[in-house]
Amino acid sequence: MTPAFERLQQQLKQLPGLGYRSAERIALHLLVGKPGDLPALINALEEAARSVRRCTRCGNLAEGDLCALCADERRDQSIVCVVENVPDLVALERSGAYRGVYHVLHGKLSPIQGVAPGDLNLAALLTRTGAGEVRELILALSNDVEGEATCHYITEHLPAGGDIKVTRIGFGLPSGGGVLYADSVTLKSALDARREYL
Amino acid sequence: MTPAFERLQQQLKQLPGLGYRSAERIALHLLVGKPGDLPALINALEEAARSVRRCTRCGNLAEGDLCALCADERRDQSIVCVVENVPDLVALERSGAYRGVYHVLHGKLSPIQGVAPGDLNLAALLTRTGAGEVRELILALSNDVEGEATCHYITEHLPAGGDIKVTRIGFGLPSGGGVLYADSVTLKSALDARREYL
Repeated sequence: MTPAFERLQQQLKQLPGLGYRSAERIALHLLVGKPGDLPALINALEEAARSVRRCTRCGNLAEGDLCALCADERRDQSIVCVVENVPDLVALERSGAYRGVYHVLHGKLSPIQGVAPGDLNLAALLTRTGAGEVRELILALSNDVEGEATCHYITEHLPAGGDIKVTRIGFGLPSGGGVLYADSVTLKSALDARREYL
Repeated sequence: MTPAFERLQQQLKQLPGLGYRSAERIALHLLVGKPGDLPALINALEEAARSVRRCTRCGNLAEGDLCALCADERRDQSIVCVVENVPDLVALERSGAYRGVYHVLHGKLSPIQGVAPGDLNLAALLTRTGAGEVRELILALSNDVEGEATCHYITEHLPAGGDIKVTRIGFGLPSGGGVLYADSVTLKSALDARREYL
Protein backbone atom coordinates (compact mmCIF):
# COMPACT_ATOMS: atom_id res chain seq x y z
CA MET A 1 0.00 0.00 0.00
CA THR A 2 1.08 3.60 -0.46
CA PRO A 3 2.02 6.09 2.31
CA ALA A 4 -1.12 8.21 1.75
CA PHE A 5 -3.23 5.07 1.89
CA GLU A 6 -1.64 4.06 5.18
CA ARG A 7 -2.13 7.52 6.69
CA LEU A 8 -5.81 7.35 5.73
CA GLN A 9 -6.13 3.86 7.20
CA GLN A 10 -4.46 5.09 10.40
CA GLN A 11 -6.98 7.94 10.70
CA LEU A 12 -9.93 5.64 10.05
CA LYS A 13 -8.69 3.11 12.60
CA GLN A 14 -9.05 5.71 15.34
CA LEU A 15 -12.80 5.98 14.82
CA PRO A 16 -14.94 4.11 17.36
CA GLY A 17 -15.79 0.55 16.36
CA LEU A 18 -13.21 0.35 13.55
CA GLY A 19 -10.15 -1.87 13.73
CA TYR A 20 -7.23 -2.41 11.37
CA ARG A 21 -9.16 -4.62 8.95
CA SER A 22 -12.35 -2.57 8.79
CA ALA A 23 -10.29 0.62 8.28
CA GLU A 24 -8.45 -1.09 5.41
CA ARG A 25 -11.74 -2.22 3.89
CA ILE A 26 -13.19 1.30 4.06
CA ALA A 27 -10.03 2.90 2.65
CA LEU A 28 -10.03 0.43 -0.27
CA HIS A 29 -13.73 1.09 -0.84
CA LEU A 30 -13.12 4.84 -0.97
CA LEU A 31 -10.02 4.68 -3.18
CA VAL A 32 -10.67 1.69 -5.43
CA GLY A 33 -14.27 0.54 -5.06
CA LYS A 34 -16.22 3.77 -5.28
CA PRO A 35 -13.81 6.69 -5.60
CA GLY A 36 -16.82 8.77 -6.71
CA ASP A 37 -18.13 8.68 -3.13
CA LEU A 38 -15.03 10.32 -1.70
CA PRO A 39 -15.74 13.99 -2.53
CA ALA A 40 -19.25 13.68 -1.04
CA LEU A 41 -17.81 12.25 2.19
CA ILE A 42 -15.13 14.94 2.43
CA ASN A 43 -17.78 17.54 1.76
CA ALA A 44 -20.12 16.18 4.46
CA LEU A 45 -17.26 16.12 6.99
CA GLU A 46 -16.19 19.66 6.17
CA GLU A 47 -19.73 20.99 6.24
CA ALA A 48 -20.43 19.31 9.58
CA ALA A 49 -17.13 20.56 11.03
CA ARG A 50 -18.02 24.08 9.89
CA SER A 51 -21.68 24.27 10.84
CA VAL A 52 -22.28 21.92 13.77
CA ARG A 53 -21.59 23.47 17.19
CA ARG A 54 -22.95 23.21 20.73
CA CYS A 55 -26.33 24.70 21.59
CA THR A 56 -25.62 27.74 23.79
CA ARG A 57 -28.48 26.79 26.09
CA CYS A 58 -28.25 23.00 26.54
CA GLY A 59 -25.00 21.77 24.97
CA ASN A 60 -26.71 19.56 22.35
CA LEU A 61 -25.58 19.65 18.71
CA ALA A 62 -26.87 22.76 16.95
CA GLU A 63 -26.36 24.65 13.71
CA GLY A 64 -27.51 28.03 15.00
CA ASP A 65 -27.36 29.38 18.57
CA LEU A 66 -30.06 26.99 19.78
CA CYS A 67 -30.54 23.32 18.96
CA ALA A 68 -33.74 22.06 17.33
CA LEU A 69 -35.14 20.97 20.70
CA CYS A 70 -34.48 24.21 22.57
CA ALA A 71 -35.95 26.14 19.63
CA ASP A 72 -39.07 23.93 19.46
CA GLU A 73 -42.11 25.73 20.93
CA ARG A 74 -43.97 22.45 21.33
CA ARG A 75 -41.43 21.01 23.78
CA ASP A 76 -42.03 21.75 27.45
CA GLN A 77 -39.18 24.13 28.22
CA SER A 78 -39.87 23.95 31.96
CA ILE A 79 -38.77 20.32 32.29
CA VAL A 80 -35.05 19.75 31.80
CA CYS A 81 -33.54 16.27 31.52
CA VAL A 82 -29.83 16.24 32.41
CA VAL A 83 -27.80 13.70 30.41
CA GLU A 84 -24.12 12.88 30.23
CA ASN A 85 -23.64 12.88 26.48
CA VAL A 86 -25.36 13.54 23.17
CA PRO A 87 -25.84 9.79 22.47
CA ASP A 88 -27.83 9.54 25.73
CA LEU A 89 -30.07 12.33 24.45
CA VAL A 90 -30.43 10.53 21.13
CA ALA A 91 -31.42 7.31 22.94
CA LEU A 92 -34.05 9.13 25.03
CA GLU A 93 -35.44 10.88 21.93
CA ARG A 94 -35.61 7.56 20.14
CA SER A 95 -37.75 6.17 22.96
CA GLY A 96 -40.33 8.88 22.22
CA ALA A 97 -41.16 8.95 25.93
CA TYR A 98 -40.10 12.52 26.67
CA ARG A 99 -41.47 15.90 25.62
CA GLY A 100 -39.34 18.26 27.70
CA VAL A 101 -35.88 19.63 26.87
CA TYR A 102 -32.36 18.53 27.79
CA HIS A 103 -29.10 19.64 29.29
CA VAL A 104 -25.98 17.83 28.08
CA LEU A 105 -23.08 17.77 30.56
CA HIS A 106 -20.59 16.21 28.10
CA GLY A 107 -19.32 13.83 30.77
CA LYS A 108 -19.69 13.04 34.44
CA LEU A 109 -17.64 14.00 37.50
CA SER A 110 -14.76 11.62 38.07
CA PRO A 111 -11.92 12.46 40.47
CA ILE A 112 -10.11 9.30 39.32
CA GLN A 113 -10.17 10.30 35.65
CA GLY A 114 -9.56 13.92 36.56
CA VAL A 115 -12.96 15.26 35.48
CA ALA A 116 -13.77 18.27 37.66
CA PRO A 117 -16.94 20.41 37.63
CA GLY A 118 -15.17 22.99 35.46
CA ASP A 119 -14.68 20.37 32.72
CA LEU A 120 -18.42 19.80 32.36
CA ASN A 121 -21.26 21.94 31.05
CA LEU A 122 -22.41 22.52 34.64
CA ALA A 123 -22.17 26.31 35.02
CA ALA A 124 -24.70 26.75 32.19
CA LEU A 125 -27.06 24.34 33.96
CA LEU A 126 -26.90 26.29 37.22
CA THR A 127 -27.43 29.60 35.38
CA ARG A 128 -30.37 28.06 33.56
CA THR A 129 -32.03 26.72 36.70
CA GLY A 130 -31.48 30.09 38.39
CA ALA A 131 -33.50 31.95 35.75
CA GLY A 132 -36.79 30.75 37.25
CA GLU A 133 -38.18 29.02 34.16
CA VAL A 134 -37.35 25.44 35.11
CA ARG A 135 -39.95 23.51 37.12
CA GLU A 136 -38.43 20.05 37.11
CA LEU A 137 -34.93 18.69 36.66
CA ILE A 138 -34.74 15.01 35.70
CA LEU A 139 -31.29 13.58 36.38
CA ALA A 140 -30.79 10.88 33.73
CA LEU A 141 -27.23 10.09 34.72
CA SER A 142 -25.57 6.69 35.01
CA ASN A 143 -26.32 4.22 37.75
CA ASP A 144 -22.69 4.27 38.99
CA VAL A 145 -20.42 6.13 41.42
CA GLU A 146 -19.62 8.96 38.99
CA GLY A 147 -23.29 9.40 38.10
CA GLU A 148 -24.09 9.52 41.80
CA ALA A 149 -21.39 12.13 42.45
CA THR A 150 -22.60 14.27 39.57
CA CYS A 151 -26.20 14.15 40.80
CA HIS A 152 -24.98 15.10 44.27
CA TYR A 153 -22.98 18.04 42.93
CA ILE A 154 -25.97 19.36 40.98
CA THR A 155 -28.40 19.18 43.89
CA GLU A 156 -25.84 20.82 46.20
CA HIS A 157 -25.33 23.73 43.83
CA LEU A 158 -28.89 24.43 42.73
CA PRO A 159 -29.95 28.02 43.45
CA ALA A 160 -31.39 28.28 46.95
CA GLY A 161 -35.15 28.73 47.19
CA GLY A 162 -35.58 28.00 43.50
CA ASP A 163 -38.44 25.60 44.21
CA ILE A 164 -37.34 23.16 41.50
CA LYS A 165 -38.48 19.55 41.72
CA VAL A 166 -35.46 17.27 41.20
CA THR A 167 -35.98 13.63 40.18
CA ARG A 168 -33.68 10.88 39.06
CA ILE A 169 -34.68 8.28 36.44
CA GLY A 170 -35.63 4.85 37.76
CA PHE A 171 -33.20 1.98 38.13
CA GLY A 172 -34.00 -1.71 38.02
CA LEU A 173 -34.60 -4.58 35.64
CA PRO A 174 -34.39 -3.62 31.97
CA SER A 175 -37.45 -4.31 29.84
CA GLY A 176 -37.61 -8.00 28.97
CA GLY A 177 -35.00 -8.86 31.59
CA GLY A 178 -35.62 -11.34 34.38
CA VAL A 179 -34.08 -11.54 37.86
CA LEU A 180 -32.04 -14.57 36.81
CA TYR A 181 -30.07 -12.60 34.21
CA ALA A 182 -29.54 -9.37 36.14
CA ASP A 183 -26.21 -8.65 37.84
CA SER A 184 -26.20 -8.11 41.59
CA VAL A 185 -25.75 -4.32 41.42
CA THR A 186 -28.80 -4.03 39.18
CA LEU A 187 -30.74 -6.24 41.60
CA LYS A 188 -29.70 -4.01 44.50
CA SER A 189 -30.90 -0.94 42.54
CA ALA A 190 -34.15 -2.72 41.71
CA LEU A 191 -34.77 -3.64 45.35
CA ASP A 192 -33.99 -0.09 46.48
CA ALA A 193 -36.36 1.24 43.83
CA ARG A 194 -39.26 -1.05 44.80
CA ARG A 195 -42.68 0.55 44.76
CA GLU A 196 -45.96 -0.31 46.43
CA TYR A 197 -48.03 -2.59 44.25
CA LEU A 198 -51.82 -2.83 44.78
CA MET B 1 -29.80 16.09 15.25
CA THR B 2 -28.96 18.82 12.77
CA PRO B 3 -29.18 18.59 8.94
CA ALA B 4 -25.37 18.67 8.50
CA PHE B 5 -25.06 15.92 11.09
CA GLU B 6 -27.60 13.80 9.24
CA ARG B 7 -25.89 14.31 5.89
CA LEU B 8 -22.59 13.21 7.46
CA GLN B 9 -24.25 10.18 9.03
CA GLN B 10 -25.80 9.33 5.65
CA GLN B 11 -22.38 9.45 3.96
CA LEU B 12 -20.77 7.33 6.67
CA LYS B 13 -23.57 4.76 6.51
CA GLN B 14 -22.62 4.00 2.89
CA LEU B 15 -19.16 2.79 3.87
CA PRO B 16 -18.73 -0.99 3.96
CA GLY B 17 -19.43 -2.54 7.34
CA LEU B 18 -21.14 0.52 8.79
CA GLY B 19 -24.85 0.65 9.58
CA TYR B 20 -27.10 3.38 10.91
CA ARG B 21 -25.96 3.04 14.52
CA SER B 22 -22.21 2.77 13.87
CA ALA B 23 -22.40 5.78 11.49
CA GLU B 24 -24.17 7.75 14.24
CA ARG B 25 -21.53 6.71 16.77
CA ILE B 26 -18.68 7.81 14.48
CA ALA B 27 -20.37 11.11 13.59
CA LEU B 28 -20.89 11.87 17.30
CA HIS B 29 -17.28 10.92 18.03
CA LEU B 30 -16.04 13.30 15.32
CA LEU B 31 -18.31 16.21 16.23
CA VAL B 32 -18.66 15.90 20.01
CA GLY B 33 -16.17 13.38 21.36
CA LYS B 34 -12.95 14.34 19.64
CA PRO B 35 -13.59 17.24 17.25
CA GLY B 36 -9.81 17.73 17.15
CA ASP B 37 -9.50 14.52 15.08
CA LEU B 38 -11.72 15.82 12.31
CA PRO B 39 -9.22 18.03 10.40
CA ALA B 40 -6.67 15.18 10.37
CA LEU B 41 -9.26 12.79 8.93
CA ILE B 42 -10.38 15.29 6.27
CA ASN B 43 -6.74 15.92 5.44
CA ALA B 44 -5.95 12.20 5.11
CA LEU B 45 -8.99 11.70 2.85
CA GLU B 46 -8.09 14.66 0.65
CA GLU B 47 -4.46 13.66 0.41
CA ALA B 48 -5.35 10.08 -0.48
CA ALA B 49 -7.91 11.26 -3.05
CA ARG B 50 -5.29 13.53 -4.60
CA SER B 51 -2.26 11.26 -4.58
CA VAL B 52 -3.45 7.65 -4.75
CA ARG B 53 -4.05 6.37 -8.30
CA ARG B 54 -3.77 3.11 -10.22
CA CYS B 55 -0.36 1.70 -11.12
CA THR B 56 -0.04 2.09 -14.90
CA ARG B 57 1.47 -1.39 -15.17
CA CYS B 58 -0.57 -3.59 -12.86
CA GLY B 59 -3.60 -1.61 -11.60
CA ASN B 60 -2.59 -1.75 -7.91
CA LEU B 61 -2.72 1.40 -5.74
CA ALA B 62 0.20 3.72 -6.50
CA GLU B 63 1.34 7.25 -5.77
CA GLY B 64 3.62 7.60 -8.79
CA ASP B 65 3.35 5.85 -12.16
CA LEU B 66 4.31 2.47 -10.72
CA CYS B 67 3.17 0.87 -7.47
CA ALA B 68 5.68 -0.13 -4.80
CA LEU B 69 5.64 -3.76 -5.98
CA CYS B 70 6.21 -3.06 -9.70
CA ALA B 71 9.00 -0.63 -8.76
CA ASP B 72 10.68 -3.13 -6.43
CA GLU B 73 13.80 -4.64 -8.04
CA ARG B 74 13.79 -7.55 -5.58
CA ARG B 75 10.40 -8.83 -6.75
CA ASP B 76 10.46 -11.35 -9.59
CA GLN B 77 8.95 -9.28 -12.42
CA SER B 78 8.66 -12.35 -14.66
CA ILE B 79 5.94 -14.00 -12.55
CA VAL B 80 2.58 -12.22 -12.60
CA CYS B 81 -0.25 -13.17 -10.29
CA VAL B 82 -3.65 -12.08 -11.65
CA VAL B 83 -6.14 -11.08 -8.95
CA GLU B 84 -9.64 -9.65 -9.05
CA ASN B 85 -9.23 -6.77 -6.62
CA VAL B 86 -6.74 -4.88 -4.49
CA PRO B 87 -7.92 -6.60 -1.25
CA ASP B 88 -7.03 -9.97 -2.86
CA LEU B 89 -3.53 -8.64 -3.49
CA VAL B 90 -3.34 -7.42 0.10
CA ALA B 91 -4.38 -10.85 1.39
CA LEU B 92 -1.73 -12.60 -0.75
CA GLU B 93 0.96 -10.12 0.38
CA ARG B 94 -0.06 -10.71 3.98
CA SER B 95 0.53 -14.44 3.53
CA GLY B 96 4.16 -13.68 2.67
CA ALA B 97 4.08 -16.66 0.30
CA TYR B 98 4.68 -14.80 -2.96
CA ARG B 99 7.67 -12.88 -4.35
CA GLY B 100 6.47 -12.10 -7.87
CA VAL B 101 4.32 -9.19 -9.03
CA TYR B 102 0.60 -8.77 -9.62
CA HIS B 103 -2.01 -7.72 -12.11
CA VAL B 104 -5.26 -6.38 -10.69
CA LEU B 105 -8.32 -6.80 -12.95
CA HIS B 106 -10.67 -4.73 -10.73
CA GLY B 107 -13.43 -7.30 -11.12
CA LYS B 108 -14.28 -10.49 -12.96
CA LEU B 109 -16.26 -11.17 -16.12
CA SER B 110 -19.98 -11.51 -15.44
CA PRO B 111 -22.53 -11.40 -18.25
CA ILE B 112 -25.31 -11.42 -15.63
CA GLN B 113 -24.00 -8.31 -13.86
CA GLY B 114 -23.02 -6.75 -17.19
CA VAL B 115 -19.26 -6.89 -16.65
CA ALA B 116 -17.62 -7.21 -20.09
CA PRO B 117 -13.89 -7.53 -20.92
CA GLY B 118 -13.74 -3.79 -21.65
CA ASP B 119 -14.79 -3.03 -18.06
CA LEU B 120 -11.79 -4.84 -16.61
CA ASN B 121 -8.06 -4.09 -16.61
CA LEU B 122 -7.57 -6.87 -19.20
CA ALA B 123 -6.09 -5.01 -22.19
CA ALA B 124 -3.11 -3.96 -20.06
CA LEU B 125 -2.59 -7.59 -19.02
CA LEU B 126 -2.52 -8.77 -22.64
CA THR B 127 -0.12 -5.96 -23.63
CA ARG B 128 2.08 -6.87 -20.69
CA THR B 129 2.19 -10.57 -21.48
CA GLY B 130 2.91 -9.73 -25.15
CA ALA B 131 6.08 -7.81 -24.25
CA GLY B 132 8.02 -11.05 -23.69
CA GLU B 133 9.09 -10.45 -20.10
CA VAL B 134 6.50 -12.62 -18.37
CA ARG B 135 7.41 -16.27 -17.81
CA GLU B 136 4.50 -17.40 -15.68
CA LEU B 137 0.95 -16.17 -15.16
CA ILE B 138 -0.72 -17.36 -11.96
CA LEU B 139 -4.49 -16.98 -12.14
CA ALA B 140 -5.60 -16.31 -8.55
CA LEU B 141 -9.25 -15.76 -9.42
CA SER B 142 -12.33 -16.98 -7.57
CA ASN B 143 -13.45 -20.57 -7.49
CA ASP B 144 -16.80 -19.75 -9.15
CA VAL B 145 -18.41 -19.41 -12.59
CA GLU B 146 -17.24 -15.82 -13.14
CA GLY B 147 -13.69 -16.67 -12.06
CA GLU B 148 -13.74 -19.60 -14.45
CA ALA B 149 -14.99 -17.42 -17.32
CA THR B 150 -12.31 -14.81 -16.64
CA CYS B 151 -9.55 -17.44 -16.61
CA HIS B 152 -10.91 -18.80 -19.87
CA TYR B 153 -10.97 -15.37 -21.50
CA ILE B 154 -7.37 -14.68 -20.47
CA THR B 155 -5.98 -17.99 -21.77
CA GLU B 156 -7.92 -17.55 -25.03
CA HIS B 157 -6.51 -14.08 -25.63
CA LEU B 158 -2.87 -14.60 -24.61
CA PRO B 159 -0.44 -13.69 -27.40
CA ALA B 160 0.15 -16.72 -29.65
CA GLY B 161 3.56 -18.39 -29.34
CA GLY B 162 4.33 -16.37 -26.23
CA ASP B 163 5.52 -19.46 -24.38
CA ILE B 164 4.05 -18.34 -21.08
CA LYS B 165 3.30 -20.95 -18.41
CA VAL B 166 -0.23 -20.39 -17.09
CA THR B 167 -1.26 -21.83 -13.72
CA ARG B 168 -4.29 -21.42 -11.51
CA ILE B 169 -4.08 -21.40 -7.70
CA GLY B 170 -5.16 -24.61 -5.94
CA PHE B 171 -8.66 -25.25 -4.69
CA GLY B 172 -9.67 -27.49 -1.82
CA LEU B 173 -9.96 -27.57 1.94
CA PRO B 174 -8.89 -24.38 3.70
CA SER B 175 -6.13 -24.66 6.28
CA GLY B 176 -7.54 -26.01 9.52
CA GLY B 177 -10.74 -27.13 7.79
CA GLY B 178 -12.00 -30.69 7.82
CA VAL B 179 -14.17 -32.52 5.31
CA LEU B 180 -17.10 -32.40 7.71
CA TYR B 181 -17.27 -28.63 7.64
CA ALA B 182 -16.64 -28.05 3.92
CA ASP B 183 -19.54 -27.33 1.58
CA SER B 184 -20.12 -29.70 -1.32
CA VAL B 185 -18.70 -27.38 -4.01
CA THR B 186 -15.45 -27.08 -2.05
CA LEU B 187 -15.36 -30.85 -1.68
CA LYS B 188 -15.84 -31.26 -5.43
CA SER B 189 -12.94 -28.82 -6.04
CA ALA B 190 -10.83 -30.69 -3.51
CA LEU B 191 -11.51 -34.05 -5.16
CA ASP B 192 -10.77 -32.61 -8.63
CA ALA B 193 -7.53 -31.15 -7.27
CA ARG B 194 -6.33 -34.40 -5.66
CA ARG B 195 -2.62 -35.14 -6.02
CA GLU B 196 -0.56 -38.31 -5.78
CA TYR B 197 0.60 -38.94 -2.23
CA LEU B 198 3.63 -41.12 -1.49
